Amino acid sequence: MDRDGCLAWDAADPLGARRDLIALPDGVIYLDGNSLGPLHHRVATRLREVIADEWGEGLVTSWNPSASGPGWVGLPGRVAAGIAPWIGADADEIAVADSTSVNLFKALAAACRLRPDRRVILTDDANFPTDVYVAGGLAELLGDREVRVVPTREVADHLDDDVAVLTLTHVDYRTGRRHDAGALTRAAHDAGALAVWDLSHSTGALAVDLHAWDADLAVGCTYKYLDGGPGAPAFLYVARRWHDRASTPLQGWFGHERPFAFAERYEPAAGADRFLDGTPPVLSLAALEAALELRVGISPVAAEAKARHLTDLFIARVDARLDGEVEVVTPRDPSDRGAQVSLRHEHAAAVMSALIERGVVGDHRPPDLLRFGFSPLVVRAVDVHDAVEVLAEVLRTCAWDTDQHRAPRTVI
Amino acid sequence: MDRDGCLAWDAADPLGARRDLIALPDGVIYLDGNSLGPLHHRVATRLREVIADEWGEGLVTSWNPSASGPGWVGLPGRVAAGIAPWIGADADEIAVADSTSVNLFKALAAACRLRPDRRVILTDDANFPTDVYVAGGLAELLGDREVRVVPTREVADHLDDDVAVLTLTHVDYRTGRRHDAGALTRAAHDAGALAVWDLSHSTGALAVDLHAWDADLAVGCTYKYLDGGPGAPAFLYVARRWHDRASTPLQGWFGHERPFAFAERYEPAAGADRFLDGTPPVLSLAALEAALELRVGISPVAAEAKARHLTDLFIARVDARLDGEVEVVTPRDPSDRGAQVSLRHEHAAAVMSALIERGVVGDHRPPDLLRFGFSPLVVRAVDVHDAVEVLAEVLRTCAWDTDQHRAPRTVI
Repeated sequence: MDRDGCLAWDAADPLGARRDLIALPDGVIYLDGNSLGPLHHRVATRLREVIADEWGEGLVTSWNPSASGPGWVGLPGRVAAGIAPWIGADADEIAVADSTSVNLFKALAAACRLRPDRRVILTDDANFPTDVYVAGGLAELLGDREVRVVPTREVADHLDDDVAVLTLTHVDYRTGRRHDAGALTRAAHDAGALAVWDLSHSTGALAVDLHAWDADLAVGCTYKYLDGGPGAPAFLYVARRWHDRASTPLQGWFGHERPFAFAERYEPAAGADRFLDGTPPVLSLAALEAALELRVGISPVAAEAKARHLTDLFIARVDARLDGEVEVVTPRDPSDRGAQVSLRHEHAAAVMSALIERGVVGDHRPPDLLRFGFSPLVVRAVDVHDAVEVLAEVLRTCAWDTDQHRAPRTVI
Repeated sequence: MDRDGCLAWDAADPLGARRDLIALPDGVIYLDGNSLGPLHHRVATRLREVIADEWGEGLVTSWNPSASGPGWVGLPGRVAAGIAPWIGADADEIAVADSTSVNLFKALAAACRLRPDRRVILTDDANFPTDVYVAGGLAELLGDREVRVVPTREVADHLDDDVAVLTLTHVDYRTGRRHDAGALTRAAHDAGALAVWDLSHSTGALAVDLHAWDADLAVGCTYKYLDGGPGAPAFLYVARRWHDRASTPLQGWFGHERPFAFAERYEPAAGADRFLDGTPPVLSLAALEAALELRVGISPVAAEAKARHLTDLFIARVDARLDGEVEVVTPRDPSDRGAQVSLRHEHAAAVMSALIERGVVGDHRPPDLLRFGFSPLVVRAVDVHDAVEVLAEVLRTCAWDTDQHRAPRTVI
């Protein structure tokens, strides 16, 4: 597909109009929505209202529903309702709170307590490092648990009757490889274990369907494809079948059945709400609530179809234009990958630095990966075309001084 | 002190000029800064920059230090430095992250692990309910620990050699009573226990001095007297003597020694930084960073002196004007109280509702407390005078229909 073909595809894209609602800087091709989603115009507007009117004028009374608004107290629930269709869940199965790390701690603790006679938390060596650290911290605290990290392809072989919980990240943050979540959940259940999924690198870009997978618990991030803003709160899913029995180790007042009764005894709220804990971060939740409005009327299936088209196109253009100068690390079968493509290059950090200088923003993962994300509401086909042209020019014209890796220390 | 006396006092108040930097709505006397601090003008300005310029334009590169700003990655550390003088600590003893509830979980877990042979977490029955829920959640997770809740005056008697940690909230959220934190920390140490303080209801209004108290760990909230904004992130303090040995159960990547190396193994960062965990909430941290600028050049001792004057004045005016219609629940000796005063009235919820309708914003704690906070940078002596006049009018003119408690469901 040449540039005109890309423009024609974009003109016919049913999701294309949403892009006008996103505040992207002029001249930037943004292929890092898998790290930090961009600002939507309505998010900026909503935040001005929250800051000036609700905090500035309404002060403490803005917690309550009133004639001027539905109240901050309901924010976690309203955001949960906005996320629900994007993960194939019901709103009352979702708690929006804390970071992904903290939610994973809660989810793994709950899962371990539902399998008290089993001592292993099983994961793979492609998991995001934090997830393994969190599992390790829980195991160390509990004393009688062990984290077993195995190669990705061997996960199913290690599902023995000592495994309490299998925890994996749906899409590999480095390679973009996607697990068959339904099959692995079934395998975990067949072995008597629970399955806890980290959806950070898929929610908002893929047709995640926790009900269809029959997942037990899940966590995920909202500042990537959901565009919730830097450090936006994360979510925790707990399947309805566990609602009566799942418990959280972080017993905070917002997870209480009657938070404002200031009761002496802890009584967990019904459903996923018991996984709320401290006072909710209002500014971040309000930004996320507004960002989710962009997605109303779009199905996750349509988003995944567009991500598939964009990643297919990117790989085809890389093959056509880069003449083997980079290695495509991401699986070429689209059902095996997420909405990102990673390329291997010896001087990846310096290449990414040069790309960013030229307005093509992706990121770099050590030691040698260039990572590009194709957020379906943000990226157009023509962006993909032009990004590969810029990359071709960078590879053709730049000399790499290995002592001068000007690494863009991009994080998250 | 009559109204003219109050005006004269305000005119001479060295902290008085700071109030012009705060965005209070016209006609409102705000006596709920102990629940949610008000918006500062510079916070609104700073948030506009963060949203439009840093998120909107800079996108993911705003995490990094650059010519246009110091970078989001350093926000937790910069905020820690702003909080440090307000709690008598060094910046590298403070981690700014998560909610107070989550931080208390981490602090208590760390304390319990430093006293592995002792099984009791001791607290008092005046503690904020969440704190007791959190301790209970930890004890339940660990299995071999017990939370012992005793009457406030008996705390010292229960410090036996089975107590791992004494945890208390410095100022009682209902009555405003203040613990003698130095003496209780000494008593805990004499018994071989650690002391973990919750400073939510004192930080920013009182001369908190963790070094002088010799405290072991502490947590606290920033959306009350520090004016960080609704649901702003909390802090955790860990004394330097524990830096090498204290560990957190929530092992997230921002608490790693090299977060962006994506290392396979968890290596805790030095000092309090290991108590960071997930990706930091940038909008909330930026608001808090800007709010702390209001306090530069003010000593906690001066803030406490003003709080003392305002609470003394409030009690004196209540005594003079309300003719025994309410009971002053807060200790009359200022060294025994925080920056708040609670009054008991049978129809407290309805009284507070009537006050708020007349522009005097305090809050209500069930069943029968009217609660008023005197944030030293927000409240003037004339506000205290006028608030009591409005309260006197409300008590004189309103009839209370007990079936119609229009409780302002004010929370936090």
